Amino acid sequence: MHSDLWVKEVIDENFAASFRVERTLFSAKGPFQTVDIVETKGHGRMLLNDGMVMLSERDEHVYHEMMAHVPLMVHPNPKRVLVIGGGDGGTAREVLRHPQIEKCVMVEIDQLVVDACKEHIPQTASVFGHPKLELIIGDGVDYVAQYKKGRDQKFDVILVDSTDPVGPAQPLFGPEFYQNIYDCLADDGIVVSQGESPYYHQEMQRTLIKIIWEKFPVATLLNFHNMTYPGGLWSFSFGSKKYHPERDFRPSGLATIKGGFRYYNENVHRACFALPNFQLENVGQFLKI
Amino acid sequence: MHSDLWVKEVIDENFAASFRVERTLFSAKGPFQTVDIVETKGHGRMLLNDGMVMLSERDEHVYHEMMAHVPLMVHPNPKRVLVIGGGDGGTAREVLRHPQIEKCVMVEIDQLVVDACKEHIPQTASVFGHPKLELIIGDGVDYVAQYKKGRDQKFDVILVDSTDPVGPAQPLFGPEFYQNIYDCLADDGIVVSQGESPYYHQEMQRTLIKIIWEKFPVATLLNFHNMTYPGGLWSFSFGSKKYHPERDFRPSGLATIKGGFRYYNENVHRACFALPNFQLENVGQFLKI
Repeated sequence: MHSDLWVKEVIDENFAASFRVERTLFSAKGPFQTVDIVETKGHGRMLLNDGMVMLSERDEHVYHEMMAHVPLMVHPNPKRVLVIGGGDGGTAREVLRHPQIEKCVMVEIDQLVVDACKEHIPQTASVFGHPKLELIIGDGVDYVAQYKKGRDQKFDVILVDSTDPVGPAQPLFGPEFYQNIYDCLADDGIVVSQGESPYYHQEMQRTLIKIIWEKFPVATLLNFHNMTYPGGLWSFSFGSKKYHPERDFRPSGLATIKGGFRYYNENVHRACFALPNFQLENVGQFLKI
Repeated sequence: MHSDLWVKEVIDENFAASFRVERTLFSAKGPFQTVDIVETKGHGRMLLNDGMVMLSERDEHVYHEMMAHVPLMVHPNPKRVLVIGGGDGGTAREVLRHPQIEKCVMVEIDQLVVDACKEHIPQTASVFGHPKLELIIGDGVDYVAQYKKGRDQKFDVILVDSTDPVGPAQPLFGPEFYQNIYDCLADDGIVVSQGESPYYHQEMQRTLIKIIWEKFPVATLLNFHNMTYPGGLWSFSFGSKKYHPERDFRPSGLATIKGGFRYYNENVHRACFALPNFQLENVGQFLKI
């Protein structure tokens, strides 16, 4: 017999995704958002912020592999990576599988997410003991605004692993933030950001890629499939000061990562930049590639 | 104010997708399946067979464009096409946009689906008046078994646009059917079939591609994203006696189709064969490409 407990996410008022739940492991309301972790049937453990699915153990590798490895297989010599958000640890986990990375700084606004994942989602949060990881609990918007004024070494790659642009993540979809990101990046730096759904968030996706297009000489989107996200199809934006995501791709780098990949591979890297026509109609004018 | 009527599809016991409904347009139980057409909010009109989402007006072009144009842009001179299933008309509609097609035979088992779509989903069913279309209400399994014994000209391309392999569509996922498909195809023929979800139907997908792999010298899967299908990521199988889906692809053919495409384009064609690692683990041994 199955339990009849479900967690339901309503998207866009007209679509809802429901996942069968075995039991609730964690539920708390913090200063930024409510955080829930449930044990589902069929999708592993699932993290929800303000009722929105952030990750499930079943498909989190898709999102995290694509966010980390696409830029790190394009940049020829990445040593310093900044992750904004990503409190579950999955993005930093994938970054730190690259042996040449010397330091990964992660700035997560919500201690509650980190603590909840440490206790209940070791699949991603196991990275928090990594010696090359510096975890800062703080506002990523303030962090980059301050960091660029300092004399610290710039970042080779910045990954904006944010929630949707409501609540604490809203400023992460604005032009000032991306000017600061630009200034925190080295002269050949790359920024990859959570870019929403090409189906359900067309306006947000256009807003984001337009900002990248205004500031970076190379600007595009890449697509991947996350089974637990609404509609399944999801995008990241890719902004780069120098390197081209396809021409500068170094597939030989894949063999340097121990343990392989569950989603990413050489063909997937090349294919993820092929945007369908309906998406090009929305964002095509803001691509530079 | 929104209505609070929803249509809900439960998949795999552990996931459910719900779409907000404005009103029910059609609902009947026929000899093969129940057929419902609802007007949704946000996804246009939606066809459900036995409660499973078959198409929505919002994303049907993805499925139908990929099923028809991928093989028709690979085969250099397709003239005769057979569609098994596809009672909504969308696949035949896309086939008949190719001016060189001389005849499209469509064999749909369920008159009720055709009639319901004719009345309520003209977006796909408008094709039923097309002079090059021959619509046969009958069992596709019997049709190919009989057709191969006759002296009629073979087909260049066969498209198996079936429902999931339960109920009337079950024999469409078996080896005998594919032997008959093979025998109904010309010596350079191609068959493309609805191939289920790489996430939710791994065993069915492996069963199908194994059959294609056993019978055809070229066998692979191609992926696309259908927002209203569970998990979003979906596959077709591609079996071919001669032509290679990438090396024999003729992108110059795209310009011959008036009205363009809403999803398909040259880059999407090349990218759709890039399967992620988790899918390759399941089906990789049955690919010949």
